[in-house]
Amino acid sequence: MAVRCLRSAGRGALRRWRPAGLSGPMGLGGVAPGVAEAPPTFGFLFDIDGVLVRGRYVIPAAQEAFRKLVDSDGQLRVPVVFVTNAGNCLQHVKAQELSDALGLEVSPEQVILSHSPLRLFRQFHEKCVLVSGQGPVEENARNVGFQNVVTIQDVRKAFPLLDMVDQSRRPKELPPLTTDFPTIEGVILFGEPVRWETSLQLIIDILLSNGNPGTELAAVPYPHIPVLACNMDLLWMAEAKRPRFGHGTFLVCLENIYKKITGKELKYEALIGKPSIVTYQYAEYLIKQQVERQGWSSPICRLYAVGDNPMSDIYGANSYNNYLKAAWQARAQAKVNGSEEVTGPHSAESPQPRKDWDVTLESCKSILVCTGVYNHHGNMPADPQDSVVETVFHGHRDFCFDPSLLEASSVVRDVNEAVELVFEKENWS
Amino acid sequence: MAVRCLRSAGRGALRRWRPAGLSGPMGLGGVAPGVAEAPPTFGFLFDIDGVLVRGRYVIPAAQEAFRKLVDSDGQLRVPVVFVTNAGNCLQHVKAQELSDALGLEVSPEQVILSHSPLRLFRQFHEKCVLVSGQGPVEENARNVGFQNVVTIQDVRKAFPLLDMVDQSRRPKELPPLTTDFPTIEGVILFGEPVRWETSLQLIIDILLSNGNPGTELAAVPYPHIPVLACNMDLLWMAEAKRPRFGHGTFLVCLENIYKKITGKELKYEALIGKPSIVTYQYAEYLIKQQVERQGWSSPICRLYAVGDNPMSDIYGANSYNNYLKAAWQARAQAKVNGSEEVTGPHSAESPQPRKDWDVTLESCKSILVCTGVYNHHGNMPADPQDSVVETVFHGHRDFCFDPSLLEASSVVRDVNEAVELVFEKENWS
Repeated sequence: MAVRCLRSAGRGALRRWRPAGLSGPMGLGGVAPGVAEAPPTFGFLFDIDGVLVRGRYVIPAAQEAFRKLVDSDGQLRVPVVFVTNAGNCLQHVKAQELSDALGLEVSPEQVILSHSPLRLFRQFHEKCVLVSGQGPVEENARNVGFQNVVTIQDVRKAFPLLDMVDQSRRPKELPPLTTDFPTIEGVILFGEPVRWETSLQLIIDILLSNGNPGTELAAVPYPHIPVLACNMDLLWMAEAKRPRFGHGTFLVCLENIYKKITGKELKYEALIGKPSIVTYQYAEYLIKQQVERQGWSSPICRLYAVGDNPMSDIYGANSYNNYLKAAWQARAQAKVNGSEEVTGPHSAESPQPRKDWDVTLESCKSILVCTGVYNHHGNMPADPQDSVVETVFHGHRDFCFDPSLLEASSVVRDVNEAVELVFEKENWS
Repeated sequence: MAVRCLRSAGRGALRRWRPAGLSGPMGLGGVAPGVAEAPPTFGFLFDIDGVLVRGRYVIPAAQEAFRKLVDSDGQLRVPVVFVTNAGNCLQHVKAQELSDALGLEVSPEQVILSHSPLRLFRQFHEKCVLVSGQGPVEENARNVGFQNVVTIQDVRKAFPLLDMVDQSRRPKELPPLTTDFPTIEGVILFGEPVRWETSLQLIIDILLSNGNPGTELAAVPYPHIPVLACNMDLLWMAEAKRPRFGHGTFLVCLENIYKKITGKELKYEALIGKPSIVTYQYAEYLIKQQVERQGWSSPICRLYAVGDNPMSDIYGANSYNNYLKAAWQARAQAKVNGSEEVTGPHSAESPQPRKDWDVTLESCKSILVCTGVYNHHGNMPADPQDSVVETVFHGHRDFCFDPSLLEASSVVRDVNEAVELVFEKENWS
C-alpha cells in the first residue's frame, strides 16, 4: 500500500523538508544544488490551448507561471502533466512545442493527448479498425496499440463510388469492384478530420453495412460495430476572436446524421479525452510515474486541474473529484465491513477498474482561467459563481448536464494567477 | 380566365382531336407532319437522378420512355418539365446532359434546378448575401437575380483565422485585420459544398455575428439573419449501391450545430426545391409556358410527377395535389359567396400567392419508381401500399411527418412503366 496522505495535516507542513540522500544533478523536477525542498504533495494538470497558448502564440502568463514552477536549474519542482484534447498530432511533437513555448524541457511522458488513454482499451487492439482524424492519425493509432488499421483514405480508394459530394473528386470511370477489403470491426474517431463530408459519409456507410461498405443496402444493423471517440470538445479557442469548431462539433454532425438516417441513436463504446474519467485516471498514473522517477518520497494527495473550458476541463476535474470521493467512501465502507480486497468504483468510462486499489489521491480541484474559451476578453466577473453557469450545455450528448460540475473550484484571470493561488493554498513559495 | 378543364369528361375524350390551322414544322412538342394529334391535357414532371440517370449513366427505361413521349420528328407530344433538386450546376448544362442522355433536345426552360424558384424571392435580390454550394454557385446566384453576392471563399480570404479545422490550411502568419468587408444580410444555401467544416464554421460565424464575422463574441442575435435553403434531399442515388449524402445531410449538420451552440432553432426564411410548394408552382408555370409556345389550345388539367424519392418527389407532388384541391375548394366557396376576387390558399413556402388566380390545373399525381433511392434493387413489392410507408422520416425537420403524403398514387418499376401507366389512364397511345 502506498504512503497515505495526512488528510488533516496542514497543507504546508512538509514544506522545506529536506530529504535524506538527495544530492547532485537530477532529472526533471530535481532539487536545485544547495536548496533542498520538501517533496511536493500536490501536482498540476494543465490544459494547453487557451491556458498556455492561443493557436501558435504563447500566453505571457504561462511563461510567468512556469518561472515559478521551476527551480534555479530550470527543473520542475512539482509534478506536472499537460492534458490536452488535441489529438491530430504526435506526443513528442506536442512536447517539443511546449518546451519551446515555456522555456523548459517537457518530456513526451508528460503529455496526454486526447487519444493517449486508448492504450488501455486492449480489447480492440487486434481488431481491424477504421481511424478518422487528420495529421499522423495512423501513426497515433499504432502508437497506442492498434495493429490492424484502415484509414478513410484506404476506404475511399477501395470504394471510389462512395465519396460523391465533391463533384471534382468523383471517379471519371466506373472503377472495378473491390472484393478483398477487410471487414471493419470498429471505428476510432481520433479527432476532427478534413473534408468532413467524406469522413461522415464513409463512417455512416461502414456503420450501416456492418463494416462492409461495398455491399448492398440491407436492414440497419443495430447495435452497430463499436465506435470509440476521443476529444469531445465542441469548441476551442485559437487566435480568432470567436471559438472554433472542435472534434465535438464533428461528433454532433455524425450523431445527428446517423439519427436522421436510421432513427436510432449512435452509441459510443467509449468517449475518451477530457472530461472522461479515464483521462484523469491516466493523468494520475503519469503523475505518480513522475514522482517515482524523481524519487520524491511523499505521495501526491491533491491535483489541481487548470483549464479554460468549463465543459471539458472543469467538468472533467470535478467529475474526477467526485469519483475520488466515492472511492474514499467505498474504501472506508469496505474497512468497516472488514473486506480484504477493495475495488474502485465502477465507471462506464473506466475500462479497467483497479483491483489492487492503490488510493492516495484525495482530490482533484478545478481552476478556470479566462484566457481561452471561457470569458476570453479577460474581464473578471464581479461574482465568479455567476459566471460559470452556462445557459447552453456545450458538453457531449452522453454527459449529463449537471450545472454543479461546471462550477470551478476557483476562477482566476490566467494560469499565473492559478499557480499563485495553488502555492498560497499549499503554503508553497 | 383560362379555358376550364372538363373535370367530368372522359380523360381521353380529346384524343386524336385535330386542331384547326396547325400545319408545317413546329418546335418542341409539335405535331408530326400528317399526323395531327389532340393537344395534351396532361403533362409530366420528371425527377432526374434515380429516374432517368444514375450518376453519369442513363437508365435504359428512360430512353424507352422518351421514345414513347416523342413523335416521329423527335418532338415531345406532351409538356415535360425536369424537376431536380440538383443545384451545383448550370441550367443549360443540365439541359445538355439530358439531351445527350435521352436523345432529344431539352431546352434550359424545361429544367428546374433546386434553386430556380429563387427568382421569385425578389425581396432578397438587392441584399448582400453569402452563397454556399459548389460549382458555379456565384453564377447561379446572379442568374436567379442576386446582385450582391459574397462566397465562402471571400469570407475565408477576408478572415483567415476563422477557418481552422484543416491544419494544413491555417495561415502561417497572423494576417492583417479586415475592416472593410460588407455586412452580410442573408445566407443562401444553394447545395452541398465541399469541405463542409469550412462552410459550416463560416455560416455559423455569420449567423452568430449578425453578418460581421470579424467582430468580438457577443450575445447570440436571434432571430438570426435570413437563411434560404435549396434542396432538402437527405440522400440521393448515384452509381454506388447505397444512397449518397445530399444537401439535406449538410442542413442536418448546420441545424444541429446551431442548436448545440446556441440552444436555439435555426430558422429558414424559405425552403426551396422539392418537396416545397413553390417548386411545383414554378413547374406549373413552366408547363403553361410550354403549352403557350406550342400553341396547344387545351389547358393542362393533370400533372404526373415521376420520382424515386418518397420524401422529395412523392411528398412534394402529394402536397401540391392537396394545395390544388384546397384551391379548388376555396374557389368554389368564393363563388358561392359571390366574391369577385379570389386568391390562392396561403402557404409559407409560396412567397407570392397569385391575386388573379388562374386555376386550370386539377391534380398533381405522384408516381414512384424503383430505380433510385427507393427500393433500388428493382424488386416490386407484393403490395405497393406496404412498401411506401417509411419507418424513418427522411424529410426535412420543418416538414411534418404525414405518412399519407409519402404514399405514391402509383408505384411502378421504372419510368417507362410510369409513362405507360399515364398513357393508359389518359387513354393516350
